[in-house]
Amino acid sequence: MATIDANPPSGTRDFLPADVSRRERAFATIRRVFGAHGFEPLDTPAFERLEVLTGKYGEEGDQLIFKILRRGEHEATGEADLALRYDLTVPLARVAARYGSQLPMPFKRYHVAPVWRADRPGKGRYREFFQCDVDTVGSDSLVADAATLHAVTDVLDQLGLSGFRVQLNSRKALHGLVEAYGVPEALEGSTLVALDKLDKIGLDRVAGELLERGVPSDAVDALAGDLAATDLVDRVRGRLERTDRGRAGLAEVDRVLELVGTVPGGDIAFAPVLARGLTYYTGPVFEVVHDGLDATIAGGGRYDGLIGMFQGQDVPATGGSLGIERILLLLERQDAGRRSGPDVLVTVLDEDGATDAMALAQRLRGQGFSTDLYVGGGKLGKQLKHADRRAARVALIRGADERAAGTVAVKHLASGEQTTVAEADLADHLARLLAD
Amino acid sequence: MATIDANPPSGTRDFLPADVSRRERAFATIRRVFGAHGFEPLDTPAFERLEVLTGKYGEEGDQLIFKILRRGEHEATGEADLALRYDLTVPLARVAARYGSQLPMPFKRYHVAPVWRADRPGKGRYREFFQCDVDTVGSDSLVADAATLHAVTDVLDQLGLSGFRVQLNSRKALHGLVEAYGVPEALEGSTLVALDKLDKIGLDRVAGELLERGVPSDAVDALAGDLAATDLVDRVRGRLERTDRGRAGLAEVDRVLELVGTVPGGDIAFAPVLARGLTYYTGPVFEVVHDGLDATIAGGGRYDGLIGMFQGQDVPATGGSLGIERILLLLERQDAGRRSGPDVLVTVLDEDGATDAMALAQRLRGQGFSTDLYVGGGKLGKQLKHADRRAARVALIRGADERAAGTVAVKHLASGEQTTVAEADLADHLARLLAD
Repeated sequence: MATIDANPPSGTRDFLPADVSRRERAFATIRRVFGAHGFEPLDTPAFERLEVLTGKYGEEGDQLIFKILRRGEHEATGEADLALRYDLTVPLARVAARYGSQLPMPFKRYHVAPVWRADRPGKGRYREFFQCDVDTVGSDSLVADAATLHAVTDVLDQLGLSGFRVQLNSRKALHGLVEAYGVPEALEGSTLVALDKLDKIGLDRVAGELLERGVPSDAVDALAGDLAATDLVDRVRGRLERTDRGRAGLAEVDRVLELVGTVPGGDIAFAPVLARGLTYYTGPVFEVVHDGLDATIAGGGRYDGLIGMFQGQDVPATGGSLGIERILLLLERQDAGRRSGPDVLVTVLDEDGATDAMALAQRLRGQGFSTDLYVGGGKLGKQLKHADRRAARVALIRGADERAAGTVAVKHLASGEQTTVAEADLADHLARLLAD
Repeated sequence: MATIDANPPSGTRDFLPADVSRRERAFATIRRVFGAHGFEPLDTPAFERLEVLTGKYGEEGDQLIFKILRRGEHEATGEADLALRYDLTVPLARVAARYGSQLPMPFKRYHVAPVWRADRPGKGRYREFFQCDVDTVGSDSLVADAATLHAVTDVLDQLGLSGFRVQLNSRKALHGLVEAYGVPEALEGSTLVALDKLDKIGLDRVAGELLERGVPSDAVDALAGDLAATDLVDRVRGRLERTDRGRAGLAEVDRVLELVGTVPGGDIAFAPVLARGLTYYTGPVFEVVHDGLDATIAGGGRYDGLIGMFQGQDVPATGGSLGIERILLLLERQDAGRRSGPDVLVTVLDEDGATDAMALAQRLRGQGFSTDLYVGGGKLGKQLKHADRRAARVALIRGADERAAGTVAVKHLASGEQTTVAEADLADHLARLLAD
């Protein structure tokens, strides 16, 4: 066979054992915590019928969809009939349309799964990556928005990412805000788009962009003045109190803050210029940032116009999404140096001893020790090197002499210390060694 | 929007919460047990470059590969450059070629993941289904074959599928067998193919097929006589003892039986006509059947010629595969009637009580109770019906009176009994209720 490129396809990753273990540990925590909050797991196929996906992500998004060629006699047409899922929201909308009455309503679900986008691969940007969404379908109550925040922040806390800040805003408050500054209604949308870039491009460039878009200069001056002030939140509150829309938006934010209360592991506050890029949000919106990490690690909000897309009607929905790939990167840094191999590696010194070694390994597993067995044969030194590489805590050695005497040599790999113990005492001895 | 078919694509499934929970429970057991046997998890992308997959599965298999259309300006060519993975073995071969020296050798890995085949969908046959493989790369020792059997049978036992039988044979023994009956060497392969169908089509039709293929009638008669005999195994052992290849095959089988020893939850025996359909096996082969379930639930063997496909050399390998979709179907039957909802559902009776209800739910989660919160609003009767639908064990009710009195009404949903307890006693009261 000709040499073949053995790398994974561009933009995708192979996950070697340490990676998979870390990811599975995080996923297990996420499943446990969302479950403890009354959210239920959902899973859908990796691909959908093409027409389910097209037209849902804008022109730019549509071009990033991986399409699957028709099969058999139709392959030659070069046409696609299926496509890999691009997110977990459209599949949720399809499930809501398909199983509506079979689902408990409100339907609180989470979904942790890979999605695929034919984006240009880059640093930290992949064509196959996991999303981790938690959503509530069928409730227009702010209690549902607050319950999302309880679940999302509890997951972050349990993942060990304490020190985060939840920034909360409301689309209604944003509309009230631009109104309060005297931005003409026709420019509301583009004003929000510009404001959303504040963190990235800074105040001066936002102000410049607003002027360019035709926002009156006194409005821009007032806004820029407030944004530069240390009492920004108070100033904005004052302005919002002056209009109906402003008061309604403020009430929404304050109600969610009240419902959520304190947040273990982090805090939560009104963030008056948080816009969230996506235009489909209709109510409260939030982002979770971690200063120490300089990263947005979660976000979400209410989007009442989306989930009903296959039902021809609005269905209220609110939810959040963990930036799971970024979170996993942070956990990887925290993990650095952590080794998680088996408790024990049983060596196999000779053909005669193999049956004995296998039985010993089985007994230890039955006693609750995770026990690797070296299946490669060869010299003891090589096997001990392997034990080290596998990050085993202890290696067991049992030659003809030990078998005859009913003993086992126990080598503690970190210290190099080796003790010979009676087989009957082995479990107790290992329990002591591993407890250290 | 025009009405759209909201079903998942043909041959695929949506997994609603009860399905996902059952599957995740099984996967967690599988990961835990394989890990305890020293196997490490691996994961690879859902798709591979097309040339990695084509030519690996025979002409028939190649036609079942889902191909992904090229993107952007190349989409119009109608050509594919990627394809969804068809199994977990070719990705393992690619990983072995790519990361060889970075992996501990022998490399013991497991991989639980979906694969995709454009097969005609049918009862129990899907286009997206999970495979669950456990393999050892880089060891030619029979200890590795026996260790596979320890791991696979331990998983079956821990999944609650005790009562299985491991049928063990060896390709060498099979070759010795056909030689012993006097089948011409040129007909060995087709004789094994015919023998492999014994369970499905019965002895008469196997004998007919052998004669048709040109196997001498005295060989067929001898074989058919042995196959019909109650002491089949002893008869075959006698015949194998008479040739070199037969003795070598028998020694291989007996060595694996000795290394494995007893199998908790099942038994293991020499199965002299077990051939396993796949021609790539080169050593011991096995199948695990469950009489009560009338199903093959696992299988595997040694396949020294496959894993080196991208390295241009033979790499010894042995492994097994759980029939995980079939096993999940069995677990679903065992599960019937089992309900696994949250411990507690907290109702929300009025806007005033919502903050209090959310705080109560958070406290209970902190105390270890999985706690759903009803976020839909509305009358108590509707909320209790929802609690029942969600299979919650207990519903909590706290109106203005209970809040003023510092109490909570606790409704046990199975019995309908309702008790009012002081808030300070709630956790103890719930623990007692849920312990029943």
